[in-house]
Amino acid sequence: MTLSHVKVVGSGLIGSSIALALASKGISVTMVDIDSRAAALAQDLVGPVPTDGEADLVVIASPVSTVSQVIKAEIEQGFTLGFIDISSVKVNPVHEISTLNLDISRFLPSHPMAGREVGGAESARGDLFQGRPWIIDPAGVAPDLLAAGRELIEICGGHLIEMGISEHDQAVALISHLPQILSTAVAARLEGAPAHWLDLAGSGLRDTTRIAASSPALWREIISANSEALKPLINLVIADLSELVENLENSQSVENFIQSGNRGRAMIPGKHGGIARNYTFLPVVIEDKPGQLAALFDECASAQVNVEDLSIEHSPEQFTGLITLALSKSDAAKLYHHLLEQGWRAHAPR
Amino acid sequence: MTLSHVKVVGSGLIGSSIALALASKGISVTMVDIDSRAAALAQDLVGPVPTDGEADLVVIASPVSTVSQVIKAEIEQGFTLGFIDISSVKVNPVHEISTLNLDISRFLPSHPMAGREVGGAESARGDLFQGRPWIIDPAGVAPDLLAAGRELIEICGGHLIEMGISEHDQAVALISHLPQILSTAVAARLEGAPAHWLDLAGSGLRDTTRIAASSPALWREIISANSEALKPLINLVIADLSELVENLENSQSVENFIQSGNRGRAMIPGKHGGIARNYTFLPVVIEDKPGQLAALFDECASAQVNVEDLSIEHSPEQFTGLITLALSKSDAAKLYHHLLEQGWRAHAPR
Repeated sequence: MTLSHVKVVGSGLIGSSIALALASKGISVTMVDIDSRAAALAQDLVGPVPTDGEADLVVIASPVSTVSQVIKAEIEQGFTLGFIDISSVKVNPVHEISTLNLDISRFLPSHPMAGREVGGAESARGDLFQGRPWIIDPAGVAPDLLAAGRELIEICGGHLIEMGISEHDQAVALISHLPQILSTAVAARLEGAPAHWLDLAGSGLRDTTRIAASSPALWREIISANSEALKPLINLVIADLSELVENLENSQSVENFIQSGNRGRAMIPGKHGGIARNYTFLPVVIEDKPGQLAALFDECASAQVNVEDLSIEHSPEQFTGLITLALSKSDAAKLYHHLLEQGWRAHAPR
Repeated sequence: MTLSHVKVVGSGLIGSSIALALASKGISVTMVDIDSRAAALAQDLVGPVPTDGEADLVVIASPVSTVSQVIKAEIEQGFTLGFIDISSVKVNPVHEISTLNLDISRFLPSHPMAGREVGGAESARGDLFQGRPWIIDPAGVAPDLLAAGRELIEICGGHLIEMGISEHDQAVALISHLPQILSTAVAARLEGAPAHWLDLAGSGLRDTTRIAASSPALWREIISANSEALKPLINLVIADLSELVENLENSQSVENFIQSGNRGRAMIPGKHGGIARNYTFLPVVIEDKPGQLAALFDECASAQVNVEDLSIEHSPEQFTGLITLALSKSDAAKLYHHLLEQGWRAHAPR
């Protein structure tokens, strides 16, 4: 199977972005959505409706609860050639599909880990998956369908990872769904707090609750579909918190808790995979006006250093900002001296 | 009381930064620390040891558990003129101080909300408190000490906020200590997870667990000292999570939970205080090499737009980066068209 015509069911961000990548390689794409406006917009973005007959492959990019329904409808229309999904949870939909009148080797479970902050076809971009992990479970999948799936992922620029569906669900429960739940749990406690308390919010609260702004419609699907993997994890967190509450006045017990978080946090790899890098942080105070960031990065370029990451901290009612640049130790030292020479308000890196 | 000589007990980041700000206004500063090396370094930074006799004011910048001990030692040396502390928790130390042989009107409880990510005198900077909230509780404080405290905060550039100590402790429990605890709780669960699971980590996990890297020695003090305010809050979170676990397969109940997080998150004010601004987000794909950020911000400057915030997303094993710029709606539209004209890989803002 070499892809020439793909049907994408679900014209949201993910489906439309896959379609854009395929279309850029000359592959015909048919866009479908229960929202005809969304489908029309997506089709408009990826090219005219193909007239070359049936698709080689159906990509199911609709919500996780609808995956088996979509396949059922396709079977009823006589299509059984091959399916690939993109949903964030795998065990549940695979179980539902196994009850359908379909040779299960014609379904490739997959999960591209991208596309978190914006939604809809209008936000689609063909490079959405560039370098992002894209998990598939090849177990029991027909070789031609597996080849088609690999081709699709390669066209999208995804970084292919093979993982069993059960392990997948446990992994994403831990590294994606649990953070969502605890971010929501912090944010939910803010409701009803006096506004002047919230004025004291620093970057800690902001970072911790950023994903609490995520779509309820999307997450209700993900969390309920992955309840089996999530339940023991949430219970472990409840147990950790209960133990903490019991020993809140015991500073040694609190210290042990914070240390366990230090160790867990250190396990998250840095940029470009691999072990977390020890960046050196260089604080620079800038005026909060157009051109200041540009001027700062001009200095970075002329000092020939590579900024690995950065954060901006704003002060309430104050029109200065603190930029903290993350660099390698040697780049930080080089840039620090360069900035001081150029009269910047840089502070000693560490 | 007008400040001419201040003694700072505790030569860490906060104490030394206050000292630097005072010294820059010609005020004599005596630095003290149980670590004599730290005290020497801090004294070296802020000027020679004053020879003009006794201090007007003692700033207690040592850990929260030591505040009353420091005051006791000062009383024993005959100093009772006036004290101001900087600790993150207020009820506990004030209670301890009330048992000392001190007119309680000579103690001004205060809390500058700054200085989170780096520690030690070597990281001190006189502008650390510029525009940051600095809470005091003026209730029952002698007018001359209150005036001295206000002068100190003004010199440091802090944004003075008056709040009772009990309300303070509840507010910081909610907006600072609870996020720390839940960030740690997420990170703690990562310990022992397979490394290839962690390779799937996205910015959601990174943001949620950033403060889980915080100092155990600092946080054990803060959390145990504020246990009274924290206990009911953590119990509410445990109740929320328990209710969620009970109804994990019920997508409506999960949706309600996520929605409550949406509402709470929306209460956090944006930059410069006030109601959260609705920024427009402009994604730009850049090559991950020196000079690219500089060039991008040059474009921002030449388009005369103000970047309100930004995030950098790295792809594992991929040397491109996605920069998402947060701007006003009109600036985003202006910059988007400007970037496209200049050949940048900008994507439609939303």
